[in-house]
Amino acid sequence: MKLAIGDKNYSSWSMRPWLLLTHFGIPFDEVLIELDEPGTKAAILQYSASGKVPCLMPDDGFPVWDSLAIAETLAERFPKHALWPRDANARARARSVSAEMHSGFFALRNAMPMNIRLTRPGVGTAPDVLSDIARIDAIWRECLAASGGPFLFGEFSIADAMYAPVVMRFNSFQPKLSPEAGAYARRVTALPAVAAWIAAARSETHIVADDELDE
Amino acid sequence: MKLAIGDKNYSSWSMRPWLLLTHFGIPFDEVLIELDEPGTKAAILQYSASGKVPCLMPDDGFPVWDSLAIAETLAERFPKHALWPRDANARARARSVSAEMHSGFFALRNAMPMNIRLTRPGVGTAPDVLSDIARIDAIWRECLAASGGPFLFGEFSIADAMYAPVVMRFNSFQPKLSPEAGAYARRVTALPAVAAWIAAARSETHIVADDELDE
Ligand SMILES: N[C@@H](CCC(=O)N[C@@H](CS)C(=O)NCC(=O)O)C(=O)O
Ligand SMILES: N[C@@H](CCC(=O)N[C@@H](CS)C(=O)NCC(=O)O)C(=O)O
Repeated sequence: MKLAIGDKNYSSWSMRPWLLLTHFGIPFDEVLIELDEPGTKAAILQYSASGKVPCLMPDDGFPVWDSLAIAETLAERFPKHALWPRDANARARARSVSAEMHSGFFALRNAMPMNIRLTRPGVGTAPDVLSDIARIDAIWRECLAASGGPFLFGEFSIADAMYAPVVMRFNSFQPKLSPEAGAYARRVTALPAVAAWIAAARSETHIVADDELDE
Repeated sequence: MKLAIGDKNYSSWSMRPWLLLTHFGIPFDEVLIELDEPGTKAAILQYSASGKVPCLMPDDGFPVWDSLAIAETLAERFPKHALWPRDANARARARSVSAEMHSGFFALRNAMPMNIRLTRPGVGTAPDVLSDIARIDAIWRECLAASGGPFLFGEFSIADAMYAPVVMRFNSFQPKLSPEAGAYARRVTALPAVAAWIAAARSETHIVADDELDE
């Protein structure tokens, strides 16, 4: 199985399936394509007709693109791992918070790009961004209160992978969070699979100028 | 089971699970909340903590919000209906095109709001909108060629429900489509569940001014 991804420093969508495969110990080969270069589109199109990463290439099936579709497909292919919570109610809620993240929070995404090497405390806090952050904080608090933690639905699941890039954004921009949300962000950051992704991002040298927030 | 939705004329996200329940003959009660009124947010929050419709309230479980999460949850709860294609490769591809729609095409969504009663041929065709339309046309053509039709993966499935609001936008704005995509849009429009939604939208009188595209 192969996974095509973008730069680890910048590719928020790529981070999600990479974390799932790594955390659950599912073997895969990584194909890293540097984003925002003249040859990027052609390189991605070799794998995915969507022209976007991530894309999963199973050894025995069609390519699967889009981070959430890859997550659902992995959950289905590897039932021995609890990629989704085992309880049906918890799973329905995990899907709700995951799909809400997948289709929303564009004010936050634009104002606070994922750039793991960047530190800009206090930047990017327009009202619509603050309202995205407040909603995420509320989701995290509710899920953690219901499950008892340490992750949103107990053990690390797809829902945490969907929110991990947001944790990276919060690490860079350091908006004010509730104590529970802040502690959750620190636990996600410390998870071995996440720490491995961060270390690789820090050692990359390729720059995507748009995500550097230089004037 | 209850489904909270917005106005049928305007609520593109609500249309998806409503079509699935209706098409597959799964009994439900509809709770319609008029959008963009002073009391809208409070009315929605009675059902969904996300503050958004659609939201599914099963008789025996937690509320499930977000159209794609509702679709996955229905597929899981009603395995006797083929909400997703039965073939694993086709299902993975159906999830890819569904999640791609869920998380993208914002140029199209903004320029061509869903407003079933509106007809504005030729309006809203900036380059980024045209590139969204070209991608959707390519997805439809590829899926139809692979499955043989009449719907994206043979019989009507979640993937078609995810794209049905786009068909409504195309009916209003009438952008140029390939013959295959145009014929598919007509088949979706004629599906009994879709026709029932459209007829209800046409008989509504509530107006959301933002989606009327008046200057
Ligand atoms: N909804 C998609 C979004 C994927 C996406 O936007 N990927 C970006 C990088 S993070 C990309 O491939 N951009 C390359 C390009 O547009 O050339 C997913 O979840 O996988
Ligand atoms: N990703 C969500 C989006 C839902 C959404 O944005 N719903 C709109 C109506 S179509 C809404 O509830 N707006 C009400 C408001 O914001 O007050 C889904 O798929 O269900």
